[in-house]
Amino acid sequence: MKKKIIYKYLGKVLKTFSTLLLCPIIVSIIYKEHITPFLIPFFISLILGCLLDNIKVKNKTLYAKDGFSIVALSWILISIIGAIPFMMEVKLSFFDAFFEAVSGFTTTGATIFKNVEVLPQSILFWRSFTHFIGGMGVLAFVMAIIPLSKDDKSMHILKAEMPGPSVAKLVPSLKKTLFYLYGIYIVLTLTEIILLMFGGLDLFHSMLISFGTAGTGGFSYLNTSLATFSLFNKYVVAIFMFLFGVNFNIYFLIVIMKDFKTALKSEELRMYILLYISAVIFVFINTYSMFSNISEALSSTVFHISSFMTSTGYSVGDVNIYPTSCRIIVLLLMLISACAGSTCGGFKVSRLVICLKTIKRDLLKTLHPNSVHTIKFEGKRIDEEVINGTCTFLFLYVVLIGIVMLFVSFDGYSLETTINAVFTTFANVGLAFKISNFAAFSALSKFVLSIGMLLGRLELFPILVLFSNIRK
Amino acid sequence: MKKKIIYKYLGKVLKTFSTLLLCPIIVSIIYKEHITPFLIPFFISLILGCLLDNIKVKNKTLYAKDGFSIVALSWILISIIGAIPFMMEVKLSFFDAFFEAVSGFTTTGATIFKNVEVLPQSILFWRSFTHFIGGMGVLAFVMAIIPLSKDDKSMHILKAEMPGPSVAKLVPSLKKTLFYLYGIYIVLTLTEIILLMFGGLDLFHSMLISFGTAGTGGFSYLNTSLATFSLFNKYVVAIFMFLFGVNFNIYFLIVIMKDFKTALKSEELRMYILLYISAVIFVFINTYSMFSNISEALSSTVFHISSFMTSTGYSVGDVNIYPTSCRIIVLLLMLISACAGSTCGGFKVSRLVICLKTIKRDLLKTLHPNSVHTIKFEGKRIDEEVINGTCTFLFLYVVLIGIVMLFVSFDGYSLETTINAVFTTFANVGLAFKISNFAAFSALSKFVLSIGMLLGRLELFPILVLFSNIRK
Repeated sequence: MKKKIIYKYLGKVLKTFSTLLLCPIIVSIIYKEHITPFLIPFFISLILGCLLDNIKVKNKTLYAKDGFSIVALSWILISIIGAIPFMMEVKLSFFDAFFEAVSGFTTTGATIFKNVEVLPQSILFWRSFTHFIGGMGVLAFVMAIIPLSKDDKSMHILKAEMPGPSVAKLVPSLKKTLFYLYGIYIVLTLTEIILLMFGGLDLFHSMLISFGTAGTGGFSYLNTSLATFSLFNKYVVAIFMFLFGVNFNIYFLIVIMKDFKTALKSEELRMYILLYISAVIFVFINTYSMFSNISEALSSTVFHISSFMTSTGYSVGDVNIYPTSCRIIVLLLMLISACAGSTCGGFKVSRLVICLKTIKRDLLKTLHPNSVHTIKFEGKRIDEEVINGTCTFLFLYVVLIGIVMLFVSFDGYSLETTINAVFTTFANVGLAFKISNFAAFSALSKFVLSIGMLLGRLELFPILVLFSNIRK
Repeated sequence: MKKKIIYKYLGKVLKTFSTLLLCPIIVSIIYKEHITPFLIPFFISLILGCLLDNIKVKNKTLYAKDGFSIVALSWILISIIGAIPFMMEVKLSFFDAFFEAVSGFTTTGATIFKNVEVLPQSILFWRSFTHFIGGMGVLAFVMAIIPLSKDDKSMHILKAEMPGPSVAKLVPSLKKTLFYLYGIYIVLTLTEIILLMFGGLDLFHSMLISFGTAGTGGFSYLNTSLATFSLFNKYVVAIFMFLFGVNFNIYFLIVIMKDFKTALKSEELRMYILLYISAVIFVFINTYSMFSNISEALSSTVFHISSFMTSTGYSVGDVNIYPTSCRIIVLLLMLISACAGSTCGGFKVSRLVICLKTIKRDLLKTLHPNSVHTIKFEGKRIDEEVINGTCTFLFLYVVLIGIVMLFVSFDGYSLETTINAVFTTFANVGLAFKISNFAAFSALSKFVLSIGMLLGRLELFPILVLFSNIRK
């Protein structure tokens, strides 16, 4: 991997990251806490960023593999630098701190901390802020960078990430695309902050929770997650989790293009809503008898399904009361997750729809061998290559989950706990049955689960490409 | 589904089946047990068979969908008729008897009986004999019927079932193909019977165990499966389980064509051996300390890996001692299973190899966008359609397992038990952690698991085609 352009872009990313590090520094100053744990990563990323950005580059061609390498390296580098505050301020070991940072930036929300309520405000802010940064990174990656390379055949494996009309194709430049995306992202976040404050939360805590919702992360500042929140605030968070699980192109169509018709016709959106409502009904029927009243049962179910399906991971009560049938539904929802082009992890509803249509096509082909069947999705014909890519993705997904599971199994937990741990990290959820925090896992497991979070977050392929690229 | 030709073929199948029912009748006579429980299904299949076979058929064209319908209907019908002895002689309920019969014919080997040692000899014989019949049926289906329709585009989803040179393509007629296949099948079975007798077992019990090995079934006549067998006989069964997991084309190449070179070059065979040895080493290292001596540890490991991987399901001791890491390996092995063109269930090594090569191709495509990559398997270029079909198969596999799991979860067992029950039936294994028999499952679960066994056995697609076909 000798291409200087990769390092140059990394430099740009690090410079931006250093700017973002000013936020926790300000929080430290306000709360009169230690600044050094944030100053050091700030200077590291600023200096390293400037050095790398100053590299003279002659060949400016960027191939998909270079893009993938940049994305993967950025996430890894930022996670390492972002782990420094945890090591310095709360004396976490490297693997613990790295796990917490990766969990933050990948918007997973699985935590090492047994008691988050004793943490300094700056660290609480930093944890939630990593979700917000991670969410922005994901939007840039899946919504702006992938669609740009639409003519690059090598990207077909990720084509399912951009179904339907996309911002990137309707807007002339990358800058403009990001402007709109981040606009929607920030407006939604601000709306949630205001609503939560309206519901009785103070500004600081509203921000923390909204950052976690926006990035579909899930770190909370309370050990009981959101269990003590008011009913109003629980519904606010539940609704915003659901909203952040929608493909951002839909918002772009509605808000900027005023094209309600196309937006509401989206097959992915419809399937997402269908899955969501079915899951709510299923879980509600199978658990309402465990609650003291129907209203509590309903709010809990709506909240948890939103949380699991959008890979956020907030909770408002003990999910361990779920019977096996609901656990299976939840595990499946976790793996599928919400829409492409959102901040959610997982397989994505778009891929699910493509796979289901492929099965239907193959069945029809068998029943009527001589008729021609093409697969349409969001009104457009889908190339065989995209179908192929989606299938490869599925296989990779299964294989990689299997490998991560094997490593984690050496810790000796039961099969169920192992599955829960791996699914919840791999799909970037963070909430799991039988696991309240990841402190007790071995350093190896923490490291492997961190890799799992990165794989899941970056749609598997970039990390693999990075490794293949490094080998040369 | 109005095609008369389907019913005509069903008639032929039933007539053959009635002939096979003479065997348990003879056993009943020898052991002076009730004959009626076998006479009734004998007459039912004979009369029904003759009636259907006498249907006058004008249009003799058979499409893939018709072939699929015949195969699916045969298995279902034979399972229903084959359940009669269990209902009459041992007073099982219909769902229990159907489960036991499906488990037999699909060569799964999951049982309803808590105590098999009290069963009449004729019933013990019938259970094992259903494995033998099921194995012959599978060979006919995947080795003779699928390859014949090689020009039928609608079969691409099952093309991975026939990698490399196949008997069906090298031999002029279906009859001849079956002659060779059944020749190899019967010679292998006879060899095992003789070896087991040499190892101290009597003829009757050698036959029962060999039938179960040949069909990769797993019903035993002892409650402890093969735990009380001599070390010699344990190794004999372990080796024959492994041998019945090999693609029968390999035996055809070696025995009939004398073409050792091509046979040993088989990529699938190599991958099968590689997976097998790796699993044995992994499980041995992680469990040998639990045994009193190394020899016992080794024989147990070799035996159980053969049993799980070939979807047989015999055991020689308690597999519940396996730590989580070994359980995950076993669950993965169960899902992958052994070679295509054998009597094993599961995803098959051939599909695994194709999927792995697809991932490699896609990675290379990303690294070198302008180079051309084709996928070769067993020396031949693989069509994109076959790759697609393999991927659809994988997705179907995952989705159907998920659905079956959901139904079974209503029984309220733990997630781990539910997973074990579904995987072991779906992959036609029969042996599972934490489950010694399926008696305690609800009638709904038994029925759904029976459907799962049929889906797994018939490579998913025929059952789905049958249902889509009936709807019209």
